[in-house]
Order: sequence, then C-alpha cells, then structure tokens
Amino acid sequence: MSRKISLLIAIHNHQPVGNFGWVFNEAYKTSYQPFLEVLEKHPKVKMALHYTGPLLDWFIENKPDFIRRIKKLVKSGQVEMLTGGYYEPILPIIPDRDKIGQIKMLSSYLKDGIGYDPKGLWVAERVWESYLPKPLKEAGVEYVFVDDYHFKFAGLNPEQIFGYYVTEEEGNKLFIFPGSEKLRYTIPFKEVHETIDYLRSIASEFPKSVTYADDGEKFGLWPGTYKWVYEEGWLERFFTALEENSDWIDLTTPGEFLKKAPPTDRVYLSSASYKEMMEWSGGFFRNFLVKYSESNNMHKKMMYVSDAIAALAAEGKQVAKLEQARKELYKGQCNCGYWHGVFGGLYLSHLRNGVYTHLIEAEKITDEIRHKGDWHEIQTIDFDKDGKDEVLISSKNLNLYIDPQDGGSIFEIDYKPKSLNVTNTLTRRKESYHIKALKKLAEAKKHGGDNTQGPESIHDLMVLKEENLDKYLSYDWYKRASLLDHFFGPGANLDNFTKCKYEEVGDFVNQPYLCKIHKGKKESSVELARNGSLYLKDGRFPVDVKKVISHDGVSSSFKTEYEIENKAKTPMPLWFGFELNLAVKDAQFNREGQIHGVEKIEIDDNWSGLKIIFKVNKEALVWHFPVETVSGSESGLERTYQGIALLFHWKFTLDPDQKWNVSLDSLFKGQ
Amino acid sequence: MSRKISLLIAIHNHQPVGNFGWVFNEAYKTSYQPFLEVLEKHPKVKMALHYTGPLLDWFIENKPDFIRRIKKLVKSGQVEMLTGGYYEPILPIIPDRDKIGQIKMLSSYLKDGIGYDPKGLWVAERVWESYLPKPLKEAGVEYVFVDDYHFKFAGLNPEQIFGYYVTEEEGNKLFIFPGSEKLRYTIPFKEVHETIDYLRSIASEFPKSVTYADDGEKFGLWPGTYKWVYEEGWLERFFTALEENSDWIDLTTPGEFLKKAPPTDRVYLSSASYKEMMEWSGGFFRNFLVKYSESNNMHKKMMYVSDAIAALAAEGKQVAKLEQARKELYKGQCNCGYWHGVFGGLYLSHLRNGVYTHLIEAEKITDEIRHKGDWHEIQTIDFDKDGKDEVLISSKNLNLYIDPQDGGSIFEIDYKPKSLNVTNTLTRRKESYHIKALKKLAEAKKHGGDNTQGPESIHDLMVLKEENLDKYLSYDWYKRASLLDHFFGPGANLDNFTKCKYEEVGDFVNQPYLCKIHKGKKESSVELARNGSLYLKDGRFPVDVKKVISHDGVSSSFKTEYEIENKAKTPMPLWFGFELNLAVKDAQFNREGQIHGVEKIEIDDNWSGLKIIFKVNKEALVWHFPVETVSGSESGLERTYQGIALLFHWKFTLDPDQKWNVSLDSLFKGQ
Repeated sequence: MSRKISLLIAIHNHQPVGNFGWVFNEAYKTSYQPFLEVLEKHPKVKMALHYTGPLLDWFIENKPDFIRRIKKLVKSGQVEMLTGGYYEPILPIIPDRDKIGQIKMLSSYLKDGIGYDPKGLWVAERVWESYLPKPLKEAGVEYVFVDDYHFKFAGLNPEQIFGYYVTEEEGNKLFIFPGSEKLRYTIPFKEVHETIDYLRSIASEFPKSVTYADDGEKFGLWPGTYKWVYEEGWLERFFTALEENSDWIDLTTPGEFLKKAPPTDRVYLSSASYKEMMEWSGGFFRNFLVKYSESNNMHKKMMYVSDAIAALAAEGKQVAKLEQARKELYKGQCNCGYWHGVFGGLYLSHLRNGVYTHLIEAEKITDEIRHKGDWHEIQTIDFDKDGKDEVLISSKNLNLYIDPQDGGSIFEIDYKPKSLNVTNTLTRRKESYHIKALKKLAEAKKHGGDNTQGPESIHDLMVLKEENLDKYLSYDWYKRASLLDHFFGPGANLDNFTKCKYEEVGDFVNQPYLCKIHKGKKESSVELARNGSLYLKDGRFPVDVKKVISHDGVSSSFKTEYEIENKAKTPMPLWFGFELNLAVKDAQFNREGQIHGVEKIEIDDNWSGLKIIFKVNKEALVWHFPVETVSGSESGLERTYQGIALLFHWKFTLDPDQKWNVSLDSLFKGQ
Repeated sequence: MSRKISLLIAIHNHQPVGNFGWVFNEAYKTSYQPFLEVLEKHPKVKMALHYTGPLLDWFIENKPDFIRRIKKLVKSGQVEMLTGGYYEPILPIIPDRDKIGQIKMLSSYLKDGIGYDPKGLWVAERVWESYLPKPLKEAGVEYVFVDDYHFKFAGLNPEQIFGYYVTEEEGNKLFIFPGSEKLRYTIPFKEVHETIDYLRSIASEFPKSVTYADDGEKFGLWPGTYKWVYEEGWLERFFTALEENSDWIDLTTPGEFLKKAPPTDRVYLSSASYKEMMEWSGGFFRNFLVKYSESNNMHKKMMYVSDAIAALAAEGKQVAKLEQARKELYKGQCNCGYWHGVFGGLYLSHLRNGVYTHLIEAEKITDEIRHKGDWHEIQTIDFDKDGKDEVLISSKNLNLYIDPQDGGSIFEIDYKPKSLNVTNTLTRRKESYHIKALKKLAEAKKHGGDNTQGPESIHDLMVLKEENLDKYLSYDWYKRASLLDHFFGPGANLDNFTKCKYEEVGDFVNQPYLCKIHKGKKESSVELARNGSLYLKDGRFPVDVKKVISHDGVSSSFKTEYEIENKAKTPMPLWFGFELNLAVKDAQFNREGQIHGVEKIEIDDNWSGLKIIFKVNKEALVWHFPVETVSGSESGLERTYQGIALLFHWKFTLDPDQKWNVSLDSLFKGQ
C-alpha cells in the first residue's frame, strides 16, 4: 500500500463591522481577490471558505462579481462554504438565542445567495467552550474547526492529532476538525517544500487527514505577505506543488472527508482557543471582560439590549421592527472591538464606536416600541454584573449610566440622536509588551534590524511605528469615566496630571458613594454623597462631597450640582476639581493645555459632528489633554488617540461646616 | 484598626448510591456523628453543612435523631444548609433539565424537612464549567463553592484569593466562594496552631474572608483520622482555638458574609476542578468518559434513559409514573461510579452496578408506559456517541446492545427482571500509579515504612493492601465485551490468555463488522459479518466470520449462530473461539481453569441470584478466569473482582470455501 494524506483546507476571511472602507478595499485587493484568482487556476485544489457577514455585505455592495466567482467555485464542487455567526461574534459570550440567530442568518444567506447549504462552522477566534455543541446543533451545524491546541487538555499530543473527532453535549453530536499549529506556521510563511516535506512525513497507509485552518488575510494583507505570496509566487507554487503531488496528497473538502472516513476518536474539549489567544487572554477568553472594564461595559450593554429585544419578542409584538433591532444587535456583537491580542481590537476607538453605535441603534428601536412622545426613566440594576448596583437614567435623547460604587461617576453617556457613546474612551493600562518595546527602543539606538528571509510570522513582529513612543506610556490608576472628584495636593500640575502621577489627597475618585434616586414627573435625578477624607501631612480631615445629577425627558442635556462641605474642625484650604473623559476629537483640546476663567466650553467633535457645551456657574481653571494609548497592531506598536480629558477645578478655603457649591450644565447637539 | 479575618467553613458529606450499609454506618459512627457532637459543644463556631440525598435518606431511615439535631443547629443560626444535586451528580455531565430537577429536589427537602431554604450550592467534586450559572440560577441557586485552583485560569494567584467573587452567564449572576487549598491541607492534617498562624498572617484591617470547603469524611472516616481528630482531640482543640480567638477570627456562615461585604471582584471561570481532580482527569473531568469506555457507557445509557423520560414527559402522560422514573434516573446519575481518582470509584463493581440498576429501573418504567404485553424492538443509533452506529435490541426481559464497529460484540446485556447489566465488567488498564506501586513493592522487601506524625494527607498514601499485587497487573488490549471472535496461534494457552498476552492471528476481536438488521413479527435479529484475515508465518489468509444474534420478545434468552468460512485457496487448520465477559461471581468459574467437552454451562451468580445457562451445539473446550483489576482506594492499592471471562473454543480444519457452524443459546433466569 502506498502512503497518502488528505489535506483539508479551511480559510477564514473577515473584516470587522465598523472598519474603514479603505481597509475593506485594501484587503480585497491584496488578499481576497488575488487568492481567489490563484485558486481558480488550480481546480484540483479543494477547500472550505468562510467569509463573514460584514465582508459578504461589502462584496454584494461593492464587488458583486466576486460573489459570482465564489458561486462558480461552489457549483463546480471545488469550494465548500462555512457558516458562522453572521457578524463574527465570540460565540460563548453572546446569549444562545443570538448564537442561533446569527448562525441561521449566515447559513440562510449562503443557501439562497451562494447556493450552498452549509453544515460546517468556523468558530470565531476558535474560542471554544464545552457546552457549544448544544446551541450549534440547534443552529443546524454538524462540524466545526478548532486548533490542535484545544486537544491538549484532552490529554492528546498535538503532534499526533489527525483526522477529525466526535464530541457531544447533552447527546448533541458534533464533529471537530483540529487545525494544525505546525501548518499555521509553515503556510504561507515557509518555503513550499517545508509543507510538502511535512505532509510526506505524516502520510500513512491508512486513511488520515491533516487540517490547515487559518485566516485568509495571512495571504496578502498581513505586512510583507503580498510580495511573498503573490509577487514572488508562493501561493502559485504551493497550489502547483499540491496538484503535482496529488497521487499521494488527497485534496478534498472537510465536508467530503467526513463521508469518507470515520472519526479518529471521541473527545471532550474544555474551554480553549488557539495558543496565542490563550496567552493573550491568560488562559480563558472571558478574562478580557475582567481585565478591560471597557470590554465588560460593551458586553453588558450588549446583554442589556439583547434582553430588551428578547423581552419584547416574548410579547409577540412588532415582529418586523424587532427583526431590524436584532440585526443592529448582531452587528454590535462583532468580536473585534471586545478584546486585544496582537491586533488593535479594543484599543481602536472606531471599532468600539462601531459596537456602541449598533447597540444604541438597536436600543432606540426598542425605545420606540416601548414609549410614545417624551419620556424619562431611572432604574437601579447591576448593569455591569459586579455584584453592586448601578443607576441608569434614560430618555429619548440620552442615556446616563452612573456607578455609585466607583466614585459616583458617569461611565456611559449615550447621545441617542447620533447613536453615540460620548464616554467611549479608554483607560491607559500597562501591557506586557510595553516592557519589551522599551527594551527594543533602547537597543534600536545601538544597531538597526535586518529582515533577510521571507516575511516573519506576525507573532514575532515587534515594530515601533513611531519614535519616542515611550513618552506616551502613562498608566491610569482609576477608570477614565466622567464626574470623577479630585482633591489635589500642592504638587499637582498639568504635566503630572496628564501622566496620572499627580498628588491626590482625597479618597473620592474611585470610592463608593451613597446613592438616592428620585423619579419625578418632570425629571429623574440621582443624589450621590460620600463622607470622605483628605489625607494631609497633619492627618486625616473629613470632607463631604454631594452631587446631584438630573435629567428631563425633553432636552438633550443634564445638570450636575455639587456641594462640598468641610467637616473638619479647622478651616481647610481646598483644591477641588471634577474630571470628564470624552471620546471626541477637537483640535482646540486634543493637546495638553489650560484655560483660565472658564464659564463655558464648546467642543466640536471632528469625528461625528457632535457639539458639546459645558457651562459652570463659577469661573474655573480648565486643564485638558489628549488621552492616548500605546498598543500592539499587526504592523507594530502604535499610538491611538482615545479622546479628551477635561478637568474643571477651583481653589478655595472652607471654614468648619461651611459649604461650597458649583453646578455644571452639559448639553449635546447635532443630528 | 485591628486586623481581622472571617473564616467561612463549608463541610460536604456524601456517600454514594449503592454503597454498602456498613459503610454508611461506619461513616456515621466515625465521622458524621462525632463531628456534629463537637460542633454542638461550640455554639460560636458557625458553618455551612452539605449532606447529599443518599445520606439524608439513610439518616431519615436509620438515624432520625440526627436529622433533629441538624434542625436544631439550623434553628439556632449556627448552621446554614447547602443544596446540590440530590444524588450528587457531576453537574456538567447531566442534562440541564436533570441538574435543575435534582437541585430542586434537595432544596425542597431542606426547606420542608430541615426548615432551611438554601441559596448556596456545593458543586459536586467542584467540577465547574463556564455555563453553569445559567441552569443554577434557574434552580434557585445564588452562590457556590469551588477551589482557589479554579481561579488560576482567571490569572489570579491562588495565594491572593480571598472573599468571594461574582460571575455571570447570559446575565445570570452567581457568587463564588473560593475554597482555600492551603486550608484543605492544614485542616485537620496539621497541628491547630498552623491554621491559626496562617489565619493571623492573612488577617486584614479591611473586610476579608477565607473559605475552608472540604469533605466531612476527612474528619474521622479517612484512614487514621478518627484517632487524630477525635481520640486525640484535634477537632475539639480547633474549635476551642477558633472561639478563643473570636476577637479577630470572625466566625460566620458564607450566606451571612454575602450580606456583610461586597464581592472582591468580577471573575469568569473556565472548566476546572480541585487540583488533584485536574491531575486525575488530565485537565478536564469529561476526559474520564474518553479514557474509560465503561464510564462512557454508563453516561450514554443515562442520557438514553433521560431522553426517554423527557420524550414521554413532553407528551404529558403518566406524570406520577414518570416522577418515579426520574427518581431512579437521578439515583443513576450519582457521580462516584463514573470516574476514578484516589478512591475506587469506577473500579468498584457495586458502584457501577448501583448506577445500572437504577437506570434500568427507570427504563422499565418508560417501557411500561410505551408497551403492553410482549414486545421486541430493534434500532440502529449512535448510542455511545462515537460517530458510528450501534444496534439496540430490546424487549420486556432483555436489552442486547451490539457494536458492529467493535468486533460485532455485545457490549451490554441487561436482564430486566433483576434490573441487572450482566456485562458490567471492566477492562484492565494501566494506571500511572501501578508503576509507583511496583517500585514500592520492590523497596518494601528492603525496609519497612514508618508513620510517626499525625495522619498523612490521603494524597500522599500509597499503601499496598495485599502482597504480590504485581502478579494481578495484566492489561487488556481490547474492551472486555462479549461475543469477541478469536483465532489463536499455536502459542496461545490458558495462562497467557488470562494475562491477555496470548498469540492472536485473526483481525476480528475489535475490528468492524458489516451489519444487517431484521425486525420480524416473531423476533429481531442482527447479522454481523466480516471478511477478515489470519496473519500466519506464510502470509495473510482470508477468512469470513458471520454471526446472527436473535431475540424474541417472550423469552429471556438470545441465540447466536456462527458461520466460519475459509476463503483461502488452501486448507486451513483453525483454532477459533468466542469470548464472553460477565459481571457475575460463581465459585466454579472465578478461578483460572478449563473444562473439556462442554455442551452446557450453568452460572449461579452469588451476588444477584441470577442464573445463566449457555448451550453450544458442538462440544467445546472452555477456558475461564476471573477478571480482576488493581486500583487505588482511600486505604491503598487493592484488587477488585470484576467478573468471569469465558472462552468457548474449537480446533478444526477447513478446505477452501468450506464452512463451519456453531450456535450458542444464552438463557437468563431469576427474579
């Protein structure tokens, strides 16, 4: 008997909801189009292809001929299509009803639009959890692709995992193809013969398959790969080599292989993803929701909107409108903005903004169904699921989400006419690669780098896209929310405040406030109060801060009334300020600076056209600086603008029991 | 401010369904009773107690006063009760409907019988999977206990995990207490001051708690602990020390602590269990279902019966009968027989038998609802969820489960009048501790051991309960099913067959058979055929084996008709036999031996009173030997009798295309 090996190829192609048009275009030109072109020339090379919903939507709109070409490959039997959640959500972090809804949405398009009824599913970011077979079966899925790394916890040696496996949950059976890590590193990064040699080394006299399952963007879009894969002909050579060796390399689709050979074994897979994701997430994808409160906020907003839709659906009303809301919700579940690994992800404000815009769009549809005319409501729920309650004020125009336990701060302001989360900024955190970057920076001054071979695997890249990135490495010790209450010591100044290394003498910024809510006919309001302290050289001195945030259902503004009271037995000189962090860009404020005697500030947001007006009833000194993060991306370490930090502050002295007041009006404008 | 620490204690007490009465009695006398006695003397020592359903049932029946004593402790507020699955199932491996059903069953008893409405749950074997908060919430659970080890994959350092955490799944919130591994090793195994010293070292000026959550049997039932914990007064000294230090050791119940302090943080937990279970299972509990086909068989039988009950329940018929069936099903879900770690578990035939008996009892109730009078049915389904179909023949009296892909063997024979799985034996497998045991055995001959300190933690024990255990260490290369078809080479004999190191020249034992099923009015039958080969010195020679297994719905017997055909071009001398493995004990057969000229064999099973009669229509030579395993238990390595292996065999020569036939009648008797 001669030795053979079945090579099963599955290529996943994706661009996130909310990504720029030019990125879609670039990806199409450098990757999706040329890949298909080479594939069309090699009819013996069979494979499974996955295009996510945002891509398919873009092709239909911009490249209808590309859809026709895919259909042709499907019709000839060369290509099998894979399904997935339409907008590529991380399956385990969305409700089962949405998993099933999103998968059925893509399957239905593939059936009607491409002429292929898919039974195989691409697991987004290969984020697997043990109970998935149950909802997947309900969505009509029969097999999936994960990595050989997933099998590590099943006690299997990744180098001995071939064929496919069978698992079940509550009796719901599912077949699993393990994508080979070895092939992920040779295709397309090593010379063609390395892959062929490896295939020869594992060929067998018995039916055996190996699966290559990876991202299509590695063929052209990733830095350096276009030249290598197309200009230098890697892909052409690879497919030619596969065809030339087709006497022993069996080229078949995964769906066909399922019919040819029985499963290798039974298996149960624990929570896992591919090896790099396991590192980035610290072993479990959902850790991202704990590490980044901004990721958690998107996730819980998503759950909040999904629950609202499900509740209305259960009433059986407004089916068509809810269908529309569901589509917006699904778009808001697109995974890319929820996490951060080697790509920008969560660090990219336009991706987070994409998520929020769609979620708020969905929410507005549920608002319309639930309310007529002007309305406002206030509720106390554990929105972020941290075991402590938050206060949500909502109206037709605004959402104000307040966390009494975290400095009595506002952590979300949604301006609904523009479906915009105005507070969608980011806290500056230390990432492990910052340390590497600083080292690299130091070394770079001694000798330059040198790339002599084919493109490096992206996982090795650590390029600095800008000089002096180190001076932007500041870390925040509190969450960049709004209405954060500061008491400064004499050493504080604009520069060290910008770096978040200033002298704080109060214990208010991220500490618990007592909270009373009031629902009136005319307005909803919440009173937040803390009996806190100042920690000075001579000891601890009690100070009370009270702030009342109020909003009506008519205007797109809210009011905040502050009262500071000296509870110490001696007169106290105070330096008090409140901080606002806003995801806006206005040339006037997105640099470090200060403005004296401020009674009114107008921000014109370049991104959205939103106008924000802040008025205070006491002249303030205002400090402002741009919040910028430094994070990894596929092309190296980069600086990302997140928004503006504004600090309104005053110096004054209070006698014992004396009070000081200031009020802030915040007005949002723009359609 | 002074430093304090809240010590939260949760004690879990459990005996498996199907355990011997004397074990319950022993556990009561050495552990449950004296523990409560000491606790009653220290009213300041508060804790949460968990008694599983099998224990509560036994107390109600045998020690009603014990229930009264628990009620009293609950009434005084000293003790809080924990719920769980009534018969202590591993939650992730049973259907959600049964998770919820079992938890509600225990909660309802605790409410009505003990006067405590439980909100806390003991996670059986702390086997956690990420999606559990959803079904747990549905069952009314608000908090659970796992180990600090579970938090490892959430990126937390086990030594810095205090208080309790909050998690959620699809918005269903759940609080989690992390049991301290450190305390699991000091209580009760180290001197009291070590625990007190540790508590002092972690005491804090801020609200802080540490959780000790472990098995009650460590206080008296585990080897050596009764003397240490009670006779030498460890528990008395411990509780006294806690009371004496109650100015800084806050003794409170977990449920009370929840009201006193907010959660430490949000967390998401990946699949995990306690550290030792992670080792035993190879990182994921469900791996046991892959490693031990016998565990998988119980699990899939359980799923099969659960589905049958659910299907009938959906029809809304026979509610009371189904309730009874469900109770039997729940008993059959008791975890102890499904896995193997440091306790016997799966290796103990009476535990597996307990599982099967309850599952068959449940199945019989569904049979009664579905059928009247005599009936038989045959179906082809993937019973064991290995991706290949099995054939199930069923009637009022018998279940015959046949695996065409695994030697066309019978892997389950249920004799329903006795609710007995007659084939509930065990394959002999290599366990990692066998190697250690052999080393220890060798060393033992040089010098004896010495225990001078308090009892060792059970995890360190490696006692050999019998001399010469090594001679029982045989390993099977095939699964110990029945109707396994052998062709022997000249070197085979009773001794090497017993050790499973004999000369096999055929390729039939565990290879695929083609399969045709036949459903007649009078009987159901399945024809299994394989065109196999003999591998001899001179080459490979084709041989066909066909066997037809048939059963009617009236008798409690089945017939097997064999046909062997020489497909080679030369005359072939053959040594053919079929093997049966039965979970029975009969002095006549449970030793190595052979019987010549057998036409009929009668087995009288000591355990169950079952009588089995085998008749062949050609005089056979029969080899028999006891199948015995060597496995770990809490008191050391022990030998366990699993059943009888019987081999009926013949030597004959077949000319080309000549056929040879034999038939076997198998009859089961006994009520």
